[in-house]
Amino acid sequence: MNDKKYTNIGKREPKLDAEAKSRGKAIYPQDIRLPNMLHGKILWSRYPHAKIVSIDSSRALALPGVKAVITALDLPALNCGFKKDNPPLKRDKVRSLRDEVAAVAAIDEDTAEEALDLIDVKYEELPAVFDPGEALKKGAPVIHEYAPDNLVQMKYDYQAGDVEAAKRESAHVVKDRFKLHYVTHTCLGTCCCVADWDTNGNLTMYSPTQVPFLYQKDLADVLGIAGSRIRVIQPVIGGGFGSKLDLYPYEIICAHLARITGQPVKITFTRQEEFFATPCRQPVIVDCETGVDKNGKLVYRDAHVLMDNGAYVSWGATIPYVMMNPFSSLYRVKNVRFKTTIVYTNNMYAGAFRGYGNLQGTFCVESQMDELAEKLGLDPLEFRLLNCNEPGDVTAQGMKVTTCGLRDCLKKATEMIGWKEKKPGPKGDRVKRGVGLASYFHVGGGARVYMSDGCGAIVKLDDFGKVTLITGSTDIGQGSETVLAQIAAEELGVRTEDVTVINTDTSVKPWDVGVHASRTTFIAGNAARMAAAKARTRILESAALMLNAPCDDLDINDRVVYSKSDSTKNVSLVKVLRKLHFKTDGAVIVAEHFYDPPQERQDGNFCGNISVTYSFGTQAVEIEVDTETGKVTVVDFAVANDVGKAINPMLLEGQLEGAAAQGIGYGIYENLQIVKGEVKNPTFLDYKIVTSKDMPPIRTALIETDDPAGPFGAKGIGEAGAIPTAAAIANAFFDATGVRMRDLPLGPETVLRALRESGKAVS
Amino acid sequence: MNDKKYTNIGKREPKLDAEAKSRGKAIYPQDIRLPNMLHGKILWSRYPHAKIVSIDSSRALALPGVKAVITALDLPALNCGFKKDNPPLKRDKVRSLRDEVAAVAAIDEDTAEEALDLIDVKYEELPAVFDPGEALKKGAPVIHEYAPDNLVQMKYDYQAGDVEAAKRESAHVVKDRFKLHYVTHTCLGTCCCVADWDTNGNLTMYSPTQVPFLYQKDLADVLGIAGSRIRVIQPVIGGGFGSKLDLYPYEIICAHLARITGQPVKITFTRQEEFFATPCRQPVIVDCETGVDKNGKLVYRDAHVLMDNGAYVSWGATIPYVMMNPFSSLYRVKNVRFKTTIVYTNNMYAGAFRGYGNLQGTFCVESQMDELAEKLGLDPLEFRLLNCNEPGDVTAQGMKVTTCGLRDCLKKATEMIGWKEKKPGPKGDRVKRGVGLASYFHVGGGARVYMSDGCGAIVKLDDFGKVTLITGSTDIGQGSETVLAQIAAEELGVRTEDVTVINTDTSVKPWDVGVHASRTTFIAGNAARMAAAKARTRILESAALMLNAPCDDLDINDRVVYSKSDSTKNVSLVKVLRKLHFKTDGAVIVAEHFYDPPQERQDGNFCGNISVTYSFGTQAVEIEVDTETGKVTVVDFAVANDVGKAINPMLLEGQLEGAAAQGIGYGIYENLQIVKGEVKNPTFLDYKIVTSKDMPPIRTALIETDDPAGPFGAKGIGEAGAIPTAAAIANAFFDATGVRMRDLPLGPETVLRALRESGKAVS
Repeated sequence: MNDKKYTNIGKREPKLDAEAKSRGKAIYPQDIRLPNMLHGKILWSRYPHAKIVSIDSSRALALPGVKAVITALDLPALNCGFKKDNPPLKRDKVRSLRDEVAAVAAIDEDTAEEALDLIDVKYEELPAVFDPGEALKKGAPVIHEYAPDNLVQMKYDYQAGDVEAAKRESAHVVKDRFKLHYVTHTCLGTCCCVADWDTNGNLTMYSPTQVPFLYQKDLADVLGIAGSRIRVIQPVIGGGFGSKLDLYPYEIICAHLARITGQPVKITFTRQEEFFATPCRQPVIVDCETGVDKNGKLVYRDAHVLMDNGAYVSWGATIPYVMMNPFSSLYRVKNVRFKTTIVYTNNMYAGAFRGYGNLQGTFCVESQMDELAEKLGLDPLEFRLLNCNEPGDVTAQGMKVTTCGLRDCLKKATEMIGWKEKKPGPKGDRVKRGVGLASYFHVGGGARVYMSDGCGAIVKLDDFGKVTLITGSTDIGQGSETVLAQIAAEELGVRTEDVTVINTDTSVKPWDVGVHASRTTFIAGNAARMAAAKARTRILESAALMLNAPCDDLDINDRVVYSKSDSTKNVSLVKVLRKLHFKTDGAVIVAEHFYDPPQERQDGNFCGNISVTYSFGTQAVEIEVDTETGKVTVVDFAVANDVGKAINPMLLEGQLEGAAAQGIGYGIYENLQIVKGEVKNPTFLDYKIVTSKDMPPIRTALIETDDPAGPFGAKGIGEAGAIPTAAAIANAFFDATGVRMRDLPLGPETVLRALRESGKAVS
Repeated sequence: MNDKKYTNIGKREPKLDAEAKSRGKAIYPQDIRLPNMLHGKILWSRYPHAKIVSIDSSRALALPGVKAVITALDLPALNCGFKKDNPPLKRDKVRSLRDEVAAVAAIDEDTAEEALDLIDVKYEELPAVFDPGEALKKGAPVIHEYAPDNLVQMKYDYQAGDVEAAKRESAHVVKDRFKLHYVTHTCLGTCCCVADWDTNGNLTMYSPTQVPFLYQKDLADVLGIAGSRIRVIQPVIGGGFGSKLDLYPYEIICAHLARITGQPVKITFTRQEEFFATPCRQPVIVDCETGVDKNGKLVYRDAHVLMDNGAYVSWGATIPYVMMNPFSSLYRVKNVRFKTTIVYTNNMYAGAFRGYGNLQGTFCVESQMDELAEKLGLDPLEFRLLNCNEPGDVTAQGMKVTTCGLRDCLKKATEMIGWKEKKPGPKGDRVKRGVGLASYFHVGGGARVYMSDGCGAIVKLDDFGKVTLITGSTDIGQGSETVLAQIAAEELGVRTEDVTVINTDTSVKPWDVGVHASRTTFIAGNAARMAAAKARTRILESAALMLNAPCDDLDINDRVVYSKSDSTKNVSLVKVLRKLHFKTDGAVIVAEHFYDPPQERQDGNFCGNISVTYSFGTQAVEIEVDTETGKVTVVDFAVANDVGKAINPMLLEGQLEGAAAQGIGYGIYENLQIVKGEVKNPTFLDYKIVTSKDMPPIRTALIETDDPAGPFGAKGIGEAGAIPTAAAIANAFFDATGVRMRDLPLGPETVLRALRESGKAVS
């Protein structure tokens, strides 16, 4: 453990933008009003699968106030999407109800909306398929001509050891089919962007993207212009959670409308559009089995994932990349097989979502851990401790575990929930109580999924000791602005309030791969710290001359440079800066660093040390099951998380609490009901998210393992808290009722059906 | 001469923002609309000199829509201004009609305006003084108690050699009294700022300031907050010309209104306010004499300047600092005496204005050059060539002339105007024609008047070869954005269009002293070039590995790195950048440089090499004088300017033409009529500026002296073109009529009076 006393690190600093957001001062994309700005609207497909026979825009164009109506014919024949299979406006046919058919730019939203009704599209409806199993059958409707079998040409087939041999050696085996459902991000800020071309042919996009530099490239490619012509400015983002990882057609359409009209154009999704036309979490069917030997050591895992890809391939189709991690690496196991079948259907397509497949995988893995514990006659906690990762382990996917607090997390979370007292107790009558736990394994030091996982930082100090940190990273609400300010402040010996973080403009900030893989605190934190360290060196060199003391005897604290050996030698930071600046051949301190972590891209078998470090955690929940109504309520919630080092305990708790709400939503409440490709509950009245009154008290323990590679020892845990929750709830459900739930969510209907089938319902 | 062929340097690139400005896309301060923004208005004094007895705001506050009414009592007792003699809102008394007495913030401008009428101020009028000579007399009204003699405690008294001895040695002497008038900047964008406090106590000012970092300090001081809490964002600036060098009360008032109301506040000047409540050019009375020996060599100059300071001291009060330069340094002269008397009056105060005293001084010096030439029987051109500075000279103020194109400028300008043919010809009857010339000497490599004359630059390249230049400097319309983009592009071997210049945010850009002293091309240009050179080195190091060639054999041209010895070895810049980036331990190129020029601050006698280089130029004009109407018309205009190196000839010509318009305005048309402290012509109908139809053709010659210290050899000439014009016109007037004009402007009344007094008018 690092015993240095920190001034800013470990401090419960409120988010720098907290009050601005709560008082309505933050500028979201919706707040942007450029001179002469038009409003765009998109005409969505009327059918889940149909040929487009003709489009007549003439009546729409004739409506006063309409400035442009565009169809695929007005666009270059360039597609977007992870596999470039998605035309921003559909050409010959539509493949889902969220397909973009035409778009309008008008002087206001009402006019644009009215114009949509005047666009006359003639379709020829085609048979559609909505079930991935059906889509694989011979004679099923074909979504894309180049894939007559409806198979997405992406394989995440991994294996380690000898699974077949391991099966023969196992003392106990469990086999299950888990069916996981659609949920959606429900960002409070709906999708909204503004496109503005300057008179020199350069495009500025005001976009809530999480990955501005990848977005710059993707947008350039699909517009057919040079990437150097694109500038991305990120307003305050009203929720990301992975939903803004891809470049989606609406932003491309917005850029085209602005280009064609010569005016800035804004497109804002309605709440309904936000529900049906943004990506959701992947529904998957997972067949998996796990074996243990007679001593309770895991022997093998074997899993197959059938994933409904929807009509187009997004980054979300790559989630098996992460989904396989809990199978291979959450607990020690040598023999692992993981296979995927990814299938086109006429459903909406999914995307990235906090946890990125890890939730689905962890639900399966941690459900089976409890099943195996039962078979072994072991306490679920003891069984997990028996198979726990330890520092120095290399997992079956070649991931090198450096620091690992999993054992402590397991103990702490169960201690907080009162595991020993509650586990064996009576389970009530109509209302049954149970406790359950689940852990997670996730990248904690970035993830090299793109060619670079780096982040740049520039640090500048002015004559007042004001520090500017220009970071490549993006704050999508997770509080990275504040955490990075704390890191820079600590390194420079100033206060967090002295640091201004600049992070919203690709023309200003150096490159960063974006917000994904819980990487920002770790990667951008290291970049910020190292840039600040360079600035610090220059400050100390100057101060050394002023104080007549060697650099290595100097430190900076609370804006004062002082000699560690003689505290009477000291000078204010501002004096050092001004002395350096205000002389002939003066200087102003600017320093930069690009931090690219020492990780590997994984090989063809998905092996390799993809992250510099890994994060671990355990959730333990106590629930009540009303066996008459089927209502499941979380009554207590304990989470212990290996955070490396808590840069800001309050923000960490906030992350873990917010994630818990999403995890509870995934486990019990949220269910995007899609029937024949149509979202049936596209409102907050019908799609139930967890609100503050549904939330149990969340007790968090931050386990500090002081990761040597992290900034001040920190690891990334942004996604962590959402990962194990549903599994912990299902395990508690089993503890309460003796019924194993393999489908989510545990809503009243599902629960009652399951209880009735098992004869456990109160009728 | 540098014989390297340049790709971007020397190219006639249109200003990068030209089309945006002409098509109304540029965002001026007036265009800024923040959520919940209020509008502020200022109540100006009713008297030029009065005690404030009481202020009753109650009726104004009661007006619906009024959010705040403030007076001096609501502000800390802190003053602004160069000598900190100017309370942002006046406390006990007012000293001029532009004094700020109270201010209102309301939901719109009309309401704020209406509220002003409801503020009841009781004054006790005091006797006032409007003439600096009167103000010096015993018993004159006292403007500030601490200056009972009305003398501003600022002295610009300089001397070199022995003037008294030189007087005795002179063969010819001329003595004159010149009286120079008020003119004003007439920026098309009136003063406008927006103040916005965030919820953490930090203030963002959207300001058209020319000196954002000095502004940051001054604003912090007068608000009584830490400088680190202030961020200055500069929208597109609708004209500066020096008028935005000081922090003026309206911006401080705006910040206070925003603080008190908790809402953003905008203050926009009406055109009338722009005329009476912004600083003007100093009216001065100059008594001066110059002597020559019998060979026509200048022997001495002796000058005294009486300057009307107005009621408060601004940066404009320091203009004698520059005004003395033409006396000491435009032509070779060893014995110089220059004295000033700067006097408080109840007039409006003056400020910085393009040329900064140099116009006034040059008018005197160049008028006397012609007078002396006549006494000597020499052609004015020949007389000047005889006394011309040459490279290697050190002027009487210790300014080291390195490169100097003055001789070439004199020859070229006169050649263009047809000097030899026109000078001796017949002068017409009623309409008389004449030619005149005048030269100037000005700092061309910055000016160390502040503690630092430096500028920082950060250069960043992205994966598309897009270059971002973050420069500390400010573009007030002079085109520095474009010139700096050309410089960075040239150094990096890309195209100007590949460069995005970021220059509007003190939190982003590194320090720069601001736009003054024609320093931006030179200082910011060097900073940009040196930062780009560091980036270039890193590019070449990477490319050297790829091409298997030594760095010094490599060059970059049009986005391609190539071997100079073997042109088959080449690789696109983008490939180099991507190779460097997309690998483990990759990097993105960011480089920075702070350029602080090797100049001196002048000593107590105003001696020292204040600039790295100096710029020179000559204007030759042909005018017509209608001796019946008194109308003076410039019919031909030739300017030759030592520009070091023309980075962008088109922009240079634009600068010289725009300045010529201001110079012609100063010489003939513009006259801010102030009577008893009141501006009598505060509209464009009554204050005559030069319009395109008044302009003669301007022929420019750019003399390239390739200054070794300049970026690609360039010097600064932003102010140059306005400096000698009035003198050239007065000299042409003498040539046309035989009448020497010592008062400006040469408007019909003044001209007719002078002609009548000399018996030269057609009656």
